[in-house]
Amino acid sequence: MLELRLVQGSLLKKVLEAIKELVTDANFDCSGTGFSLQAMDSSHVALVALLLRSEGFEHYRCDRNLSMGMNLGNMAKMLRCAGNDDIITIKADDGSDTVTFMFESPNQDKIADFEMKLMDIDSEHLGIPDSEYQAIVRMPSSEFSSICKDLSSIGDTASGPCVAVIISVTKEGVKFSTAGDIGTANIVCRQNNTVDKPEQSTIIEMQEPVSLTFALRYMNSFTKASPLSDQVTISLSSELPVVVEYKIGEMGYIRFYLAPKIEEDEEMKA
Amino acid sequence: MLELRLVQGSLLKKVLEAIKELVTDANFDCSGTGFSLQAMDSSHVALVALLLRSEGFEHYRCDRNLSMGMNLGNMAKMLRCAGNDDIITIKADDGSDTVTFMFESPNQDKIADFEMKLMDIDSEHLGIPDSEYQAIVRMPSSEFSSICKDLSSIGDTASGPCVAVIISVTKEGVKFSTAGDIGTANIVCRQNNTVDKPEQSTIIEMQEPVSLTFALRYMNSFTKASPLSDQVTISLSSELPVVVEYKIGEMGYIRFYLAPKIEEDEEMKA
Amino acid sequence: MLELRLVQGSLLKKVLEAIKELVTDANFDCSGTGFSLQAMDSSHVALVALLLRSEGFEHYRCDRNLSMGMNLGNMAKMLRCAGNDDIITIKADDGSDTVTFMFESPNQDKIADFEMKLMDIDSEHLGIPDSEYQAIVRMPSSEFSSICKDLSSIGDTASGPCVAVIISVTKEGVKFSTAGDIGTANIVCRQNNTVDKPEQSTIIEMQEPVSLTFALRYMNSFTKASPLSDQVTISLSSELPVVVEYKIGEMGYIRFYLAPKIEEDEEMKA
Repeated sequence: MLELRLVQGSLLKKVLEAIKELVTDANFDCSGTGFSLQAMDSSHVALVALLLRSEGFEHYRCDRNLSMGMNLGNMAKMLRCAGNDDIITIKADDGSDTVTFMFESPNQDKIADFEMKLMDIDSEHLGIPDSEYQAIVRMPSSEFSSICKDLSSIGDTASGPCVAVIISVTKEGVKFSTAGDIGTANIVCRQNNTVDKPEQSTIIEMQEPVSLTFALRYMNSFTKASPLSDQVTISLSSELPVVVEYKIGEMGYIRFYLAPKIEEDEEMKA
Repeated sequence: MLELRLVQGSLLKKVLEAIKELVTDANFDCSGTGFSLQAMDSSHVALVALLLRSEGFEHYRCDRNLSMGMNLGNMAKMLRCAGNDDIITIKADDGSDTVTFMFESPNQDKIADFEMKLMDIDSEHLGIPDSEYQAIVRMPSSEFSSICKDLSSIGDTASGPCVAVIISVTKEGVKFSTAGDIGTANIVCRQNNTVDKPEQSTIIEMQEPVSLTFALRYMNSFTKASPLSDQVTISLSSELPVVVEYKIGEMGYIRFYLAPKIEEDEEMKA
Repeated sequence: MLELRLVQGSLLKKVLEAIKELVTDANFDCSGTGFSLQAMDSSHVALVALLLRSEGFEHYRCDRNLSMGMNLGNMAKMLRCAGNDDIITIKADDGSDTVTFMFESPNQDKIADFEMKLMDIDSEHLGIPDSEYQAIVRMPSSEFSSICKDLSSIGDTASGPCVAVIISVTKEGVKFSTAGDIGTANIVCRQNNTVDKPEQSTIIEMQEPVSLTFALRYMNSFTKASPLSDQVTISLSSELPVVVEYKIGEMGYIRFYLAPKIEEDEEMKA
């Protein structure tokens, strides 16, 4: 039997809004450690990894490891029916082919339960080794989001979804560049350690300068996770997929992995 | 001659927004008692009854009973041109085939008059007898609205507009249920008499438990009246159409009537 | 070489939003006097004239007169990437076929530069003589905007984009009228000199009463400039195009010119 009670239910709502565009169907894995997900996007280019540690739940009961296949669009529809202050409980009986989401209003006056069919989904769990990165940028998630949106508005023309962003890191700052039919754009964010407003800081930890090219539309998708965290961390190395990470309070994270483009017209599959 | 001056003109704006989707053309009836309307929706399933009592108007002159046929979409377009603080006056001359809506800004600096052609509309006035109901639920109109919207998002798939909601009342509370392609949903609101915030109360007066099935899309249409009132009253009996009522300040009401579905695949015409 | 630095960059953003719908491509003219534009709309009915005086810029360097042809839609896309508090600098090298827009955030942490190709655009500069007007109306720009929108909602039916507005000025006030399939509308704004809130005043300077007819959809386009100024000035004479003017702070203006319709079914080309 599975019963996970999350007082700050809005976190789960935001998680689904963050990943439902990228991933259609996926297995949620439950174990003693926590509630997690690992999935490729539908075009098998980007990888999403989610972890919500068991300690973050008010009540966490998971009698045996369980993998539950869900359609993320339908799951998001159900979670959208939860109020922002609602407590959310995820329930499943052993051997059942359904999962139940229960939403309780803070004053307990309104209680809703939504039952959804589970799906059988083939998935292979990739081991992701810990790596050293040439450069790690931590910056306000809202700023990263608006930069990706701005660059898309410039690049997004006839060339369409293949628009690329070049991310270059030096000691001074991080530069995002693109080129499209209507012109070119460069946006530089300088290192900036605002001690009194740490959520607005831009911090760069750099071993050596790095400059990598990515498909801009994936970066744009990743920024859907911005409501989860004030800050985003971007880890870059020339031989590795970039990692774009959003912390989920104290209890976990969403990480997006995307391989750099090697040449202009060749797209690396991760 | 007809001249009805309504200081709180926004009420009339909200009334039109509440009913214009359900009813296309209808007769407004003017008498010494008040300004009223009774109309079936275009598919002849639901009935709308509106009353604005003469005492609620700052000035109410109606020399003889008058029935004015109007296109509610066009009337709503004109009323949308009134400011929210404007005083609205409805004027018609005897024998004229037009009606005039006059909008005065609070400081009298801006005065607008909009003239609309009247229509000839056949209508029969149904007598609606006062009835005893097995259960009467009074609850926040915003909550009823969000419940109907949430259930629609679950039920609203391939089965489309025929999605049903089951409303069940017991002493403990009222339950709204639906089932759709993606799963099932139950939302329970408990009785809750919040003395200091009466507009947030949920009050149940019950003679006997009742459980009835309705077409969800009509319920959703009815909730367009929510801006008129903090509370909605739902009166249920197994042999009668449900009545969903929104009070309009002290001066009247909008009531929606809808017959329950007898069997899953048979739709009662009211 | 050209380098124009505008601390209040949001003004330039608003200018582009104001004119990009009316004009597709246009030459911006730079001289010692200022940064200006004069262009007909694409159907050659309305004329736009923009002036930003050199004194309004923090830094204004223009070595020789320069005419830069730009696609306003693309320029607006780039300016939309500037923050509302950003400082905007326009740069062009002599003989270059590109222009660069640089955006600096107030704290200098984020610096963006967007480069756009220039275009060759044929244009003739019309001399616009100073004229005496029969009536000049100054009124809140938001009110003029909502009146044009309201009248459009009434007139805008089968007759479509040819809907006309009649503007009539008397000592008492200014009247805006239209007629459409669903009815007629008259909106009167009375003269009103609110000394303590001058931005809400409606002031009429009248030599003689005047009543003129215009294509409503152009008036509606002009109101896109409302964010630039609290007040709009409408100058009317029976023999002249109307001038609809929005001041841009202390530094300039946008003026729209539109010839009155002589007869119902004949459209004057300016």
